[in-house]
Amino acid sequence: MGDAFIVFLPSGKRGRFAVGTPILDCARKLAVDIDSVCGGRGICGRCQIEVGDGTFAKFALTSTPENLSPLSEPEKKYDQRSTLKPGRRLSCHAQLTGDLVIDVPRESQVHKQIVRKRAEVRDIELDPAIRLHYVEVAEPTLETATGDFERLLAALQEQWGLTALEEIDIRALQRIQSCLRTGQWKVTVAVHRGARITAVWPGFHDKAHGLAFDIGTTTIAAHLCDLSSGEVLASSGIMNPQIRFGEDLMSRVSYVMMNPGSDAEITGVLREGINQLIHDVRTEAGVDADTILNATFVGNPIMHHFLLGIDPTELGGAPFALATNSGITLWATELGITETSPDARVYVLPCIAGHVGADTAGVILSESPHLNEQISLIVDVGTNAEIVLGNKHRLLAASSPTGPAFEGAQISSGQRAAAGAIERVRIDKKTLEPRFKVIGSDLWSDEPGFEKETRSTGVTGICGSGIIEAVAEMFLAGLLSADGVINGAMAARSSRVQEDGRTFRYVLIARENEVSINQTDIRAIQLAKAALYAGAKLLMDKLNIESVDKIVLAGAFGSHIDTKYALVLGMIPDCDPKNVTSAGNAAGTGARIALLNQKARDDIQSIVRNIEKVETAIEPRFQEHFIEAMAIPHKTAAFSKLALTVDMPQPDPDDISQAGRTRRRRRS
Amino acid sequence: MGDAFIVFLPSGKRGRFAVGTPILDCARKLAVDIDSVCGGRGICGRCQIEVGDGTFAKFALTSTPENLSPLSEPEKKYDQRSTLKPGRRLSCHAQLTGDLVIDVPRESQVHKQIVRKRAEVRDIELDPAIRLHYVEVAEPTLETATGDFERLLAALQEQWGLTALEEIDIRALQRIQSCLRTGQWKVTVAVHRGARITAVWPGFHDKAHGLAFDIGTTTIAAHLCDLSSGEVLASSGIMNPQIRFGEDLMSRVSYVMMNPGSDAEITGVLREGINQLIHDVRTEAGVDADTILNATFVGNPIMHHFLLGIDPTELGGAPFALATNSGITLWATELGITETSPDARVYVLPCIAGHVGADTAGVILSESPHLNEQISLIVDVGTNAEIVLGNKHRLLAASSPTGPAFEGAQISSGQRAAAGAIERVRIDKKTLEPRFKVIGSDLWSDEPGFEKETRSTGVTGICGSGIIEAVAEMFLAGLLSADGVINGAMAARSSRVQEDGRTFRYVLIARENEVSINQTDIRAIQLAKAALYAGAKLLMDKLNIESVDKIVLAGAFGSHIDTKYALVLGMIPDCDPKNVTSAGNAAGTGARIALLNQKARDDIQSIVRNIEKVETAIEPRFQEHFIEAMAIPHKTAAFSKLALTVDMPQPDPDDISQAGRTRRRRRS
Repeated sequence: MGDAFIVFLPSGKRGRFAVGTPILDCARKLAVDIDSVCGGRGICGRCQIEVGDGTFAKFALTSTPENLSPLSEPEKKYDQRSTLKPGRRLSCHAQLTGDLVIDVPRESQVHKQIVRKRAEVRDIELDPAIRLHYVEVAEPTLETATGDFERLLAALQEQWGLTALEEIDIRALQRIQSCLRTGQWKVTVAVHRGARITAVWPGFHDKAHGLAFDIGTTTIAAHLCDLSSGEVLASSGIMNPQIRFGEDLMSRVSYVMMNPGSDAEITGVLREGINQLIHDVRTEAGVDADTILNATFVGNPIMHHFLLGIDPTELGGAPFALATNSGITLWATELGITETSPDARVYVLPCIAGHVGADTAGVILSESPHLNEQISLIVDVGTNAEIVLGNKHRLLAASSPTGPAFEGAQISSGQRAAAGAIERVRIDKKTLEPRFKVIGSDLWSDEPGFEKETRSTGVTGICGSGIIEAVAEMFLAGLLSADGVINGAMAARSSRVQEDGRTFRYVLIARENEVSINQTDIRAIQLAKAALYAGAKLLMDKLNIESVDKIVLAGAFGSHIDTKYALVLGMIPDCDPKNVTSAGNAAGTGARIALLNQKARDDIQSIVRNIEKVETAIEPRFQEHFIEAMAIPHKTAAFSKLALTVDMPQPDPDDISQAGRTRRRRRS
Repeated sequence: MGDAFIVFLPSGKRGRFAVGTPILDCARKLAVDIDSVCGGRGICGRCQIEVGDGTFAKFALTSTPENLSPLSEPEKKYDQRSTLKPGRRLSCHAQLTGDLVIDVPRESQVHKQIVRKRAEVRDIELDPAIRLHYVEVAEPTLETATGDFERLLAALQEQWGLTALEEIDIRALQRIQSCLRTGQWKVTVAVHRGARITAVWPGFHDKAHGLAFDIGTTTIAAHLCDLSSGEVLASSGIMNPQIRFGEDLMSRVSYVMMNPGSDAEITGVLREGINQLIHDVRTEAGVDADTILNATFVGNPIMHHFLLGIDPTELGGAPFALATNSGITLWATELGITETSPDARVYVLPCIAGHVGADTAGVILSESPHLNEQISLIVDVGTNAEIVLGNKHRLLAASSPTGPAFEGAQISSGQRAAAGAIERVRIDKKTLEPRFKVIGSDLWSDEPGFEKETRSTGVTGICGSGIIEAVAEMFLAGLLSADGVINGAMAARSSRVQEDGRTFRYVLIARENEVSINQTDIRAIQLAKAALYAGAKLLMDKLNIESVDKIVLAGAFGSHIDTKYALVLGMIPDCDPKNVTSAGNAAGTGARIALLNQKARDDIQSIVRNIEKVETAIEPRFQEHFIEAMAIPHKTAAFSKLALTVDMPQPDPDDISQAGRTRRRRRS
């Protein structure tokens, strides 16, 4: 018979095997990553490969499809059932007959990389906590007294090498006998983390789905994923129905404090919302509840506690003690989740500290500062800013009390980021006239059709990103001093600057229910941005660094804010603008990573254990940094670079902090 | 079709059912106590009822036998076989066609069983799976960001050395913060097997209770134990409420086979019974449900499967495949147990083989043959005899198909061991007159006051131990040949020996509804005892031994039978009578051991894995032994010793198996 040479691409792994060896066997011997659910029985179609055709000088061989055995019966059947693409073969049934270069397509790899849109982040290696295994089980005889479960375990050990598998959920145990007999001793099992059988189906079954949740104070977002491909099948979000108990976090905690026992009710509405959202995404994707076998959750500490049915009262005051800072694995049913399989497991990522939640743990998984030599500053802005700083050698985390100003709360014309809210603002430096964009329209307010497009929503207020831009633009237009005082003298130049008691306000929309920015609003933004800056600076002190290599703005706020304005305002430390990026919903991405890669769960547990938690409230330097950071803009090298990009006059090189005044003097 | 109204007497339970519903089904729906051995197949005749004829003003209905369906074929067959008394019907086949008042005669009711226990004293090393630990936990500070759970773990590790403790139930996690604060940073936790916190209380708490259950086919027994002292606080038993689905195991399995899906209902009534029993024992002992934190269960394979909610159909036929032969740990709530703490854990001992259950695993724990050098033969007699043989070097187990004769079933005057049943029999060798004892009285039938004491119950039949003694005494009195033929010649000496077709019967009580032993009864006992003996002998063959060092008779039957008579009949192999003991409810004791000693759970798991399972059905030698063992008494050395103690003439030393005949020749 002889033997032949085989090279697998893209890995380049190669070896010599006897003619007649199935390609999948060669791959396994060489530790080449080829997927299979059915264990090489020609059923699942996961092990497809392609044959390189031609001479490969690099490997000194000529490969041709002729060097594979002819199409086998199981391959023909599979082709009839599911259609093999031209050139594709099932590696479990195609045998080596001569030298071959084999291409393993991405979708045939077990640990396939799931490529993320943002170039700067790592791909996700597919290795879900729940895996399906098709297995043939020995039938019982009068001679063998072992139970069906034990014979199933033996088969899984032998056919899949699952040596750590010992346990089974009672619901699966109750179904095992009928499944084995219905499936004629062939069943598919779902195995959780290689240790426990959580579901069983007769015969071959290849549908396993998972959900990644980001439980935000305002919105709940979910991604429904196919656990075998890693693909996101549907994503959706709903308002957090807890809003009726208070719009911001502290109102909800206060509600519980004032109404002891009400946490169960607030947890209940959250869980209802989660079930509704699951129903929405699985309906959209056409996925049965029974195939949803896993779910992961991130959220800030208070959302985390509500989700788990833990009274969050302790998080409402110092010392802000978490019930736990470990990841939690439990049944979906224990969280009142009814829209998944009853066998579904849930993993809730760990919180880091009383103000630094599982959402930040998710952000860390997504941005992986712990894997880089570069020093990253990652900021997730909400009611509190959660701040992570560091690299592979050392990682720190803190929360900074920015308050709700960045979310549009406690701002005179402020509102949540919803349709009708102003989200972008530009102020003409000559006329001091504003133009703006509102959520729900792509047009600027001075473009034709704006009126028509916004008729249904109206312009109802200004959201966080809008306020940031308004304040920065006011500063750039000379309407604001560096120490944050609205310049009353400008009232002479524009009717938009109006007296407001002893101070002034800038009117964006003049009407009965006007939209304007007053002195108190400016102060709130100053306090918020100073808190954010001071928190970051405090961590930089701890790390003994003066600058960071990159800054990532995470969260809904981070993805809506124009990073330039964040630098103009001095919200974040000095950094080359091209290294300041927005990460979008990095927390949700972290939940998705934990869903698709079980090792990430162990990783984040150990990261959370080792991360240095810094409590800003007890650090004297935090106050110093905070006071220093009140001015607009704070002294930064980046500021001068930015000045160009936002078309801003050069500040006096001798007194960069006086840039605003310099400008004002020139203009006036 | 419409429906009709039915009232059951004496209970008075009533309801409305569709025309065509079998009366037994109505009774089950209404939880009316109607007996059934065959599971509603018209065979056993235990479910007989009578129809009230006339107008029942109290129930505002007119009942007439016309309101039942005409006599069915199975009823006609039963009538031909066993004669239905006038007016009697089989409730499993008589269907509702109009309004009815149904009288459930006393003998058709499931009588309240008298559950007797032996105070088994055995040293148990107290090491329960659930332990309470009182601990002082460090308070959180702003400097330490660890969760309360993690600080609790650290305290438990430091103060109790619980280094393997890592997990916590969600319910306990939900309570941890309030308990720590209410208890001023001192709490008590319940730790399951050193690995997981299952409950938490503020401050000091010292109440932890556990339950050991023996789920028998006929009765359920429970011991409520104090887990900190090991003391049994209360013990109680109830009839297994599944009896309404069939008196013996196979009837219940047959019921499930004929009514797919009904296993959930049968599991449900079992679990209801368990909850009722827990309520009884904890009320008796004055123990709160919340302090019951653990429970252990033993039972035969079918009870084991029903308990776990596993359809036992596979145990109804070859190859008798168990769903699992591993011990199972789960939450009490997963078994529908509501009368314990919701945090309670349950451990179900492993089954050994399809006919050798977790009850036998319990017997092994109780009798510990695996720890001795002596070779023990342990026999647990029920519908099947479960047999264990061996010592510390080697252990074997088998089940032998004795049938229900030893339990009084399939015996003409047989009944379950309940009040009114004859349980002891002596026959005067001269007069051939019997005297007997019945359950519920300590007096012999020839003692003064016997009539009065038994007036309430009457003498209703003969139970297993009574039959054994009757047959042995008949043999000893010369009424029976060694090959089991009732000697018709004796009719000349006593009117108690009467013709019975071509054979004879011995009348214990002559009356209209006489209590007697006929030739068929003798055959049933011979078959049962031969099966038991052959099973034991087969295991002895495997071990290559001719005799055993000790014999233990376990179970309710074992504790009621006089071991001497077991040897006279040749039920068990040759053994010095002083080494034949009765172990009482050894299975229940095993459950108690597993409750009080967690290591016993690991022990039994490994014993069950290593025990050699012998399937009698496929062993040719079993048949040989079986045939040899039919004679009474079987040749044994012990027999001659016994002869003295039971005052029996010495047999011919040359032909010990002819002892009976020798005696008969001498007497006649």
